[in-house]
Amino acid sequence: MIKRIAILGTGLLGTSVGLALRAAGFRGSIVGWNRGAEGAQTALAAGTIDSIATDALQAARESQVVVLAVPIYATLDFMEKLSGVLGCEHLVTDVGSTKGQITEAAGRLFNTPERAAFLPGHPMAGKERGGAALGDANLFRGAVWLFTDDPTWRRSLHSAELVKGWREWVVAMGSKTLDLDPVRHDELVAWVSHLPQFAATALSALLEEEVGGAPELKDIGGRALREMTRLGASPYSMWRDIALTNTEAVQAALLALEERLAHLRENLRGPELRDEFERANRFRRE
Amino acid sequence: MIKRIAILGTGLLGTSVGLALRAAGFRGSIVGWNRGAEGAQTALAAGTIDSIATDALQAARESQVVVLAVPIYATLDFMEKLSGVLGCEHLVTDVGSTKGQITEAAGRLFNTPERAAFLPGHPMAGKERGGAALGDANLFRGAVWLFTDDPTWRRSLHSAELVKGWREWVVAMGSKTLDLDPVRHDELVAWVSHLPQFAATALSALLEEEVGGAPELKDIGGRALREMTRLGASPYSMWRDIALTNTEAVQAALLALEERLAHLRENLRGPELRDEFERANRFRRE
Repeated sequence: MIKRIAILGTGLLGTSVGLALRAAGFRGSIVGWNRGAEGAQTALAAGTIDSIATDALQAARESQVVVLAVPIYATLDFMEKLSGVLGCEHLVTDVGSTKGQITEAAGRLFNTPERAAFLPGHPMAGKERGGAALGDANLFRGAVWLFTDDPTWRRSLHSAELVKGWREWVVAMGSKTLDLDPVRHDELVAWVSHLPQFAATALSALLEEEVGGAPELKDIGGRALREMTRLGASPYSMWRDIALTNTEAVQAALLALEERLAHLRENLRGPELRDEFERANRFRRE
Repeated sequence: MIKRIAILGTGLLGTSVGLALRAAGFRGSIVGWNRGAEGAQTALAAGTIDSIATDALQAARESQVVVLAVPIYATLDFMEKLSGVLGCEHLVTDVGSTKGQITEAAGRLFNTPERAAFLPGHPMAGKERGGAALGDANLFRGAVWLFTDDPTWRRSLHSAELVKGWREWVVAMGSKTLDLDPVRHDELVAWVSHLPQFAATALSALLEEEVGGAPELKDIGGRALREMTRLGASPYSMWRDIALTNTEAVQAALLALEERLAHLRENLRGPELRDEFERANRFRRE
């Protein structure tokens, strides 16, 4: 039923979707569009996509499924444009890291019997560096792929079938799917995804000031330091949109971590240190 | 010249020293002592040590080199006892994570021409879980092994040769050595080792309260969450002594991280977010 898929944005996630679809047995055609020509060429050379589209909207019109794999504000821009040119024979889905604004736009611009379906999605997979060259057929294997679908949306029978079909491909790519309310989604990822990222950024920036001038001192920290700062390499260009579209939940999580660190600091010599280590140990227990 | 080595404490570090010495070609005998009989038996069965000593002080007297691989306060206790029973034909060294109090005791109790030498050491290697069963011949490969030796100490010629010999074995085990002043050592490891640990403990304890009751939510975070909380499994028993013997430097580092997180939180929607990501990116640049 899905014979042609357009991937708009051939960065890490877009190319990984293409490779994972192929590995899962997708035999239709995959057309790719990218804002920069170099990323599209890399994706084509790696066999991620079959062809490069120069006109994203036309490529979308000619496909049954459109995967938006661009930053969040670019996703919102595409949603505005695509809602005017696609009809009920299409499904649009995305991979954005926050789902509040995207799900709101999906209800406003899509998901009526006459319009295209929009399935808001968020694969919990990535790497600390992006780009077409890092695309990985196994990126989604064992990962959770979140959806913030709204059961009150009334889609055409055809586009509802496309939604079902895309969910099956997500499972075939190796992911477990989980449906969440969009507000709950954004709160939850603030804790388990955005907070770890911003903590790594703050720690890395602090250490750059403290020991950055002496590269031999970075070696001293060993594996623990490398792991705790690996996400420090993450690009601002991606996280800016997350910070702007999930500000309140991220602020609450950051404040809670500040308070937790202050609690440790004030209790380094007291019995509360044991309680805190035991609580942390419990989180890591299988 | 070094024919017999006593390893006091056959936990992760002690057993790894035994295995790494063997892998590096040490042909002498290695005797092990451990507070708990089970850990000693595990170490013996794994070929880490040749024999188990029931009397630690006697095993030390019968060896040229004594490696203290126990927590910091236990190291300080052993130093008091060993200084009375060892002479200038012995070298004692340790693997403790803070060096201020240990180096002070080394100057007070050892390192005269009549007394044993004490070389304060700190291999920057470990795992988030301890125990004899995890001993690893490659644990020190590529790691930095810090020393806080004091050039004003006046050792016997014999024990000075043992110090030189032990440093050569450390290099043979695959480590790079680096000499630091003990105060500078403790400040530096507060940044590159202790701060990452306490940050991981605080983050893990916080997340245990926020999402710990729902194990399926931990999966959502994926690799980034796993990495940022891996050190949450570290045992209180080891970190208590570090917190007690490096309190001020750790407090300063924790306070700086709290301020850094607050700065991020207050600037999620502003241009300072870009600066902070770029600073973090620089720390991770090779």
